[in-house]
Amino acid sequence: MNMLEIYNKDISYSYEEGKSLLDILQDSGEIIESPCGGKGYCGKCKVQIIKGKLEKPTEEELKYLSKKDLEKNIRLGCFVYPKGYTCVKFLNKEEKNYKALSDGYIPDIELNPIIYKEVITWEKPTLKNNFSYEETLEKSIGEELYHNDTEILKALANVDNEEKVTLLYYEDKLIGIESGDTKDELYGAAVDIGTTTVVVSLIDLNTGKEIGTETSINPQKEYGLDVLSRIDFVKRKDNGLYLLQKAIVECINFLLENLCNKNGIDIQNVYEIAVGANATMMHLLLGIGTNTIGKSPYATIFSKEKNLWAKSIGLKISSFGRLYCLPGVSSFIGADIVAGAVVANLKDTKDNVFFIDIGTNGEMLLSKGGKLVSCSCAAGPALEGANISCGMRAAEGAIEGIQFNEDGVELQVIGDAEPIGICGSGILEAIAELHKKEIIKKSGRLKRKEDLEKEKRHILAEHLMEEGKKRKVILYKNGDEMISITQEDIRQVQLAKGAISSGFYALLDFMDMGMEDLDSIVIAGQFGRHLKTGSLTGVGIIPENLKDKINYIGNSSKTGAMICLLSKDARKEMEDIAKDIEYFELSTKEGYEKLFTKCLTFN
Amino acid sequence: MNMLEIYNKDISYSYEEGKSLLDILQDSGEIIESPCGGKGYCGKCKVQIIKGKLEKPTEEELKYLSKKDLEKNIRLGCFVYPKGYTCVKFLNKEEKNYKALSDGYIPDIELNPIIYKEVITWEKPTLKNNFSYEETLEKSIGEELYHNDTEILKALANVDNEEKVTLLYYEDKLIGIESGDTKDELYGAAVDIGTTTVVVSLIDLNTGKEIGTETSINPQKEYGLDVLSRIDFVKRKDNGLYLLQKAIVECINFLLENLCNKNGIDIQNVYEIAVGANATMMHLLLGIGTNTIGKSPYATIFSKEKNLWAKSIGLKISSFGRLYCLPGVSSFIGADIVAGAVVANLKDTKDNVFFIDIGTNGEMLLSKGGKLVSCSCAAGPALEGANISCGMRAAEGAIEGIQFNEDGVELQVIGDAEPIGICGSGILEAIAELHKKEIIKKSGRLKRKEDLEKEKRHILAEHLMEEGKKRKVILYKNGDEMISITQEDIRQVQLAKGAISSGFYALLDFMDMGMEDLDSIVIAGQFGRHLKTGSLTGVGIIPENLKDKINYIGNSSKTGAMICLLSKDARKEMEDIAKDIEYFELSTKEGYEKLFTKCLTFN
Repeated sequence: MNMLEIYNKDISYSYEEGKSLLDILQDSGEIIESPCGGKGYCGKCKVQIIKGKLEKPTEEELKYLSKKDLEKNIRLGCFVYPKGYTCVKFLNKEEKNYKALSDGYIPDIELNPIIYKEVITWEKPTLKNNFSYEETLEKSIGEELYHNDTEILKALANVDNEEKVTLLYYEDKLIGIESGDTKDELYGAAVDIGTTTVVVSLIDLNTGKEIGTETSINPQKEYGLDVLSRIDFVKRKDNGLYLLQKAIVECINFLLENLCNKNGIDIQNVYEIAVGANATMMHLLLGIGTNTIGKSPYATIFSKEKNLWAKSIGLKISSFGRLYCLPGVSSFIGADIVAGAVVANLKDTKDNVFFIDIGTNGEMLLSKGGKLVSCSCAAGPALEGANISCGMRAAEGAIEGIQFNEDGVELQVIGDAEPIGICGSGILEAIAELHKKEIIKKSGRLKRKEDLEKEKRHILAEHLMEEGKKRKVILYKNGDEMISITQEDIRQVQLAKGAISSGFYALLDFMDMGMEDLDSIVIAGQFGRHLKTGSLTGVGIIPENLKDKINYIGNSSKTGAMICLLSKDARKEMEDIAKDIEYFELSTKEGYEKLFTKCLTFN
Repeated sequence: MNMLEIYNKDISYSYEEGKSLLDILQDSGEIIESPCGGKGYCGKCKVQIIKGKLEKPTEEELKYLSKKDLEKNIRLGCFVYPKGYTCVKFLNKEEKNYKALSDGYIPDIELNPIIYKEVITWEKPTLKNNFSYEETLEKSIGEELYHNDTEILKALANVDNEEKVTLLYYEDKLIGIESGDTKDELYGAAVDIGTTTVVVSLIDLNTGKEIGTETSINPQKEYGLDVLSRIDFVKRKDNGLYLLQKAIVECINFLLENLCNKNGIDIQNVYEIAVGANATMMHLLLGIGTNTIGKSPYATIFSKEKNLWAKSIGLKISSFGRLYCLPGVSSFIGADIVAGAVVANLKDTKDNVFFIDIGTNGEMLLSKGGKLVSCSCAAGPALEGANISCGMRAAEGAIEGIQFNEDGVELQVIGDAEPIGICGSGILEAIAELHKKEIIKKSGRLKRKEDLEKEKRHILAEHLMEEGKKRKVILYKNGDEMISITQEDIRQVQLAKGAISSGFYALLDFMDMGMEDLDSIVIAGQFGRHLKTGSLTGVGIIPENLKDKINYIGNSSKTGAMICLLSKDARKEMEDIAKDIEYFELSTKEGYEKLFTKCLTFN
């Protein structure tokens, strides 16, 4: 019998022969990290085989397995195909104390939410005025009700014995009715769905105050670490779209419930959720297929804002609750970036501002006194610590600061813990240091051990390791365990730097501007916030002479969602800006290849 | 252990002590007839106790149990409270070959459905025209899409490789998109939800042709036979509203699936369901509380038409499918009656027409050359064969025709079967006969056996049975089995007749009209259709001299729903008429009591 037992969970599943272990586990609803989406190149879906007949690892699989792994019979789920009774054990490496960026600069706005309440005295039907409750209410408020939703009717059937009722309005249309006076209870939630992180903020719509924030890893990462692997997952799995939608909706519900419980607020008094996210995350939230985003011409199914009933996708706020999806521009310039444009006030400015959101994709907006042009480049996952040999996310144990002295290496580790890897900002700082201390050349090539010896930098030379032509810099060593930066890691960062800074120059060029014309550089997003200004300019992502003009606005996607909750004018502005942003496709620029190559070098 | 086993079904339920057997069965999802809703006065929820410790029947329960019942240990579910292990057997008395009225007069209308399709060649986004699919479509059709629903976006994500697409319009708004050319497949369903019967018709919206019809008993009857017991069920049971809504939605889905399967039509090509129903049935369909309908001032929560997404209540047609609930006037004059007014053309007529829908409630509309006034009276369930000692619905085995000759009694039985009861039209005909043959007096009192003997009508006298002061007429006898009409049965019919004909005269009076002013009497509804004109006039429900002016229009509720599917103008007319119908509350009429009493007598 084909039975798969999970050793740590005391649970068994029957399975179909011919499926990979990873597929069987995911189909059974087990959560197992597989950032590459089961394509066999991330090496993350390791499980220990306690019992079971498996083919020996192929050479491909062996690339991802250490000697210790092999001793413990640890295998990659996507490579092995179980037969008969099999028992596996999950390797629990939970990320602890992960803290996403939730704060940020909040612009001044006038409190004027699209959702508001009014209390009236309810005049119920009588034998003489024997109209329906619906008509009686319509007469009281002097307008007709929506008649494409039953929630308000359901509520009307329950306010029978109340004298006072509270009316809930959305865009000056009555959308809900509650017994008694509930005017004081009026909340909204601002949500940023990042590919990696989800942030939910609970907002008091009466005061504009942010009551609290909860963050979590985006649970969709179990099905694919980056946007493309999730798009591929949707394509490959019959119910992939459903699984991804379910994961994110449950995550938002969970975070919001926590927030409400902590603050003694009834989740039924949350009436709107506003969401900022990139195009793929927005499609997945609404359960809309992402195939077209993943292939040329990379068109979204939708980019404009969406106004929906929150319950329509399973969000568990008030039954009258609304869902507002912020407007985006294209596959590459999503609602998160439009939100940033509003938060950074790029439209109403007389200044020339360059806005960059650094992540797997680098998204850029250039405002020339209010005229907006955007572009996007594939920076790759290196800056987020992925595709880096010892890369990890910015969690406890991640090296985030590095200084090379003539005495050796000094490390700063998140949580002051024993180092277990390097996070994205760490790798950037390390490479900036390697460049500054001339351990790498302009081309990015690590110097030879021999050269460092010649330069009498013996201690640094000791940190250099050479295996044939392959070189790496050892940052930390403890017995067999070793954390290093390889030549390949440096190449990955160079590619990211090349992509971003070529976009930077191309966009300036497109607007007939030079660096000297810029009044300010705005860095947005999760990753940017962790960076020291020196790291950005040190590797040349941003030119050194703009160092003093760099500003951080933090999670502008969430902030944008928040101001959409608080001000209907800001929402209108957001929708207008989304229409105004021009998109410039880098690959269509003459001489772009050359510019890109030039941008790969360190200066 | 508290375990209830169902003998005929080989299934067991654990139960909570202290609940009645009926409640336990219903809570477990078993369907058991309980027309009175478990209040202990209908005597229908009989089950045989195979094993179990039960208290002895109370005097109240004994009223409903025959000697045979007691011998077989048959008890009423609502009276007994099981303890410990109990095994019961259902008494299967399924109604066979029940055929509800689905046909009827269909007025001429111009085919102009609110839902229609258009085929276009799909121009997908390109690198040059890199808009979203949504915007590209908007440009093609020159208008903005609804942005409060995701179905069209979901569909857009799936039409990627199609050259031609079919657009689905509702009220000239795009609501759906399908791959390829599907113009030929455009169906709707007209539904009549009666308290007793559900009728579903499948309509080809391209041709206006009725493809087929399916009917079923309204499954809500298991929770309560009439409107009031269902309202009470909703009040009494926590999830009562949910159960009743689920029952009717599943019933419509089931009937429609059957119809589609039989006719080789994909249910995904059904795009609109139009429903005619009384106010309570309409509230239950939408899951709206009915409490206010059940008590003074008997206000509905809503009466106006409703336009909803069909999926919002679980109807399984096209994901773009719409649900149109026809407009009603009040608790008493529902959408079924408004539909009748349109079908009978009461608004655009220069004639004076009296429209009556006879059922548990008698609903009446009087059109004085197009000016409409309505009233409603509680006829009671007698005319539908309920509250009648040997009453049953118009199913196989029901006596539907009776003639008293000097030789004895001649019976017509539905399905030419052995008689097992009398249906509503049968009881009416029987009483008309009893009146005609002077077996009852004007007051409704059965003559004494002695009197008939004196009149030398010996054979008829033999059919009269006297038990003390109680009299009844035996229609059929076979061993112990006996079908009879009791004095009490006659009283019930008299009350119905009194209610209807007093409404008739009151409404004429209200409009300053006499019988002679009427050009036509229109009889609508399930029950009316089964009646012979002679029965209606014979007992005096309709005055004898109007006999030749009586017309039947059949199930005008379903016909009304059908014409709403086929013509948006007819739909508009329906909505206008609903606003124009004045409601006249009989109880407010001076001298109504006196009129009612007068109408109780046979003339």
